[in-house]
Amino acid sequence: MGTELLLGDVVDTNSCQIAKILNSLGVDLFRKISVGDNFLRIKNALKEALLRADIVIISGGLGPTEDDLTREAVSEALGKKLSVREDVFKRVKERLKHRNVPEKVILKQSLVPSSAEIIQNPVGTAPGIVIEEKGKIIILLPGVPRELKAMLPEVEKYLEKKVKSSSVIKSRILKVWGLTESQVNEKIAPLMAQENPTVALLAKEGEVHIRITAKFPPSEVEEKIKSVESIIREKIGDYIFGKDEDTLEKVVGNLLIEKNITLSLAESCSGGLVCHRLTNVPGISASLLAGVVSYSNRAKSEILKVPERLIKEKGAVSYEVALKMAEGVRKLTGSCVSLGITGIAGPTGGTPQKPVGLVYIALCAEEGKFCQRYIFPGEREMVKLRTSQAALDILRRYLLGRLELKE
Amino acid sequence: MGTELLLGDVVDTNSCQIAKILNSLGVDLFRKISVGDNFLRIKNALKEALLRADIVIISGGLGPTEDDLTREAVSEALGKKLSVREDVFKRVKERLKHRNVPEKVILKQSLVPSSAEIIQNPVGTAPGIVIEEKGKIIILLPGVPRELKAMLPEVEKYLEKKVKSSSVIKSRILKVWGLTESQVNEKIAPLMAQENPTVALLAKEGEVHIRITAKFPPSEVEEKIKSVESIIREKIGDYIFGKDEDTLEKVVGNLLIEKNITLSLAESCSGGLVCHRLTNVPGISASLLAGVVSYSNRAKSEILKVPERLIKEKGAVSYEVALKMAEGVRKLTGSCVSLGITGIAGPTGGTPQKPVGLVYIALCAEEGKFCQRYIFPGEREMVKLRTSQAALDILRRYLLGRLELKE
Repeated sequence: MGTELLLGDVVDTNSCQIAKILNSLGVDLFRKISVGDNFLRIKNALKEALLRADIVIISGGLGPTEDDLTREAVSEALGKKLSVREDVFKRVKERLKHRNVPEKVILKQSLVPSSAEIIQNPVGTAPGIVIEEKGKIIILLPGVPRELKAMLPEVEKYLEKKVKSSSVIKSRILKVWGLTESQVNEKIAPLMAQENPTVALLAKEGEVHIRITAKFPPSEVEEKIKSVESIIREKIGDYIFGKDEDTLEKVVGNLLIEKNITLSLAESCSGGLVCHRLTNVPGISASLLAGVVSYSNRAKSEILKVPERLIKEKGAVSYEVALKMAEGVRKLTGSCVSLGITGIAGPTGGTPQKPVGLVYIALCAEEGKFCQRYIFPGEREMVKLRTSQAALDILRRYLLGRLELKE
Repeated sequence: MGTELLLGDVVDTNSCQIAKILNSLGVDLFRKISVGDNFLRIKNALKEALLRADIVIISGGLGPTEDDLTREAVSEALGKKLSVREDVFKRVKERLKHRNVPEKVILKQSLVPSSAEIIQNPVGTAPGIVIEEKGKIIILLPGVPRELKAMLPEVEKYLEKKVKSSSVIKSRILKVWGLTESQVNEKIAPLMAQENPTVALLAKEGEVHIRITAKFPPSEVEEKIKSVESIIREKIGDYIFGKDEDTLEKVVGNLLIEKNITLSLAESCSGGLVCHRLTNVPGISASLLAGVVSYSNRAKSEILKVPERLIKEKGAVSYEVALKMAEGVRKLTGSCVSLGITGIAGPTGGTPQKPVGLVYIALCAEEGKFCQRYIFPGEREMVKLRTSQAALDILRRYLLGRLELKE
């Protein structure tokens, strides 16, 4: 269904799945192309690709409907005859026996170019097709993500035999919060000019991700990545909160659980996002006692016992109220540590003195207190997200013993 | 950052955003290409694309770092001189004035090919670049999705002036919650066989989206979509909660604000997600008084006044406790209406009698109460998401006067 991709309704995840396998095998992926469900355009795209590449993998257009044209276009591009393969026909028929499917549909899905090999589809009807032609490999896979995914292990096994790459590609991502992309760039600029391993930066909603990619023989690749990683860690320090699949909430949640420290939250402008993110971490119920989203002033004073007078004098968005919110929720729940968060998420509610994006985040524990003021750029949801990042990072630094508390 | 896409780490959503605009303007999108952050490969991809297409849109590689090469490659492909543009330089400098950014970084982001036009970037530093050359249009946009999105309206305006198409493609999406894809399919099967407008289904994390797509002259297209929409609305009824950019939280939040009804929330297994989603709606602070995430039993009894005896007898995940949580938070905040949500998000904590995914959602109002039991499939985050969907939908039905309450 290439047309779906070109209409912009469907995001292409298949190519990511395929890319990961190619990378792990040490195959360089140079180009991805999407074309519509059109005979000529599919045929031409394949012909061009074969001029550039040794392996071409095509996903989609193997279904039973009129606009599924990949088999036909590929056969013509390669000058192959397309005919019904008996074993495929039997398998498709067996799979569809409980449905009232016309024979024509089964026949279409059983068409295979001459001298091609088959990759079985364990969760659908259309099989994968592998063609070896003049030293090139062409692989056709279905476009349904679930089916493609189920067939990739077979594809990987096949390619593993064919591809004699002496080296493999591995990546590691180091995740940074609290520095901008240019600040990170400045700290590790010399590394970013180097060829193998390469180091690249990606800005992601307030986080900066540093990706190390290395292409080496399997026995060396991990060690090469590690040596670059340790240089980066030296330069960036504890702004790095995690790596690869880590999220800030996972890192913080797991620290809380490991250290057996209980937490409570008092959120205003972040609207429960800190609580939501932490409760995505399995097992967090052992640590997280409660969260209060005190969106109204009444909730701040009645539930969290922030003095009404203080709210009137200093404003609901103030250093003092953030601290009182943290204190209040800690007292209410008896937790070891607590956060108090108050700010202006926008789009309305800002003033020249207290603009949209102004946020105070306080932490309260037995040993002392902490409060920090921020001005976050962006729209409402971005302010909420950045607030939750900052709050989780304060908690992380506290849990690592790197937050300076006051009495 | 094309390399990111080729490594399979990042899913390409930018091209979908761009595709939608091209479609709405009646521009046929024939091909999408991804290449790595490599000077020669970017240059060649552009040269090839210009042989086939009248408009080439490139996203990514406009950042300040070493591996951002799009400006340079495009200038060379087109034989243009690249130089610092004074107005861009001033704007980038102004934007970065509070950060300690080296002049070199600002200079790089101010490079513009000769005779190009600029599209301002309202949320970042790198501007978009438009080049008209020998009857072709080349547009460069940043790769950060948030920045790209913010600039697309300008791109659309620009292209609208340049492109004269006799018919346009328009889509409408109707969003359904509470029916499965096959249930929706069954209700509107005859419509799905028709050619123009087409009707297609897309299952999305518990929601089913019905997409109507029509290609007609501008004067007819809206009316053609409307006539299909009204047939679908007749068949599906109030399972349709919104359309196009609507989200369940937007629909519910805006109903609350319009009707001037105050709300409070008591969440357990959903961990603050309902509160987070509702607080994404601008202006909700007029309605949402407070949310309590009573993750521990102590929080349920001390903050929400759920009797400890009840929790012991019926269990924290029970019909009775859900109702008491809703009552408790309503009393605490004095809100018109309230929700109480308790369940088992997993992966642990399930028993044969009370499996992972068991959730009770209660609503409490002046006029009466409501409570419903669910068993949601999926992992922790999916159970949380589905719980929040169900809770928001109960609230929606209440606000539309379509929820049957008990005394």
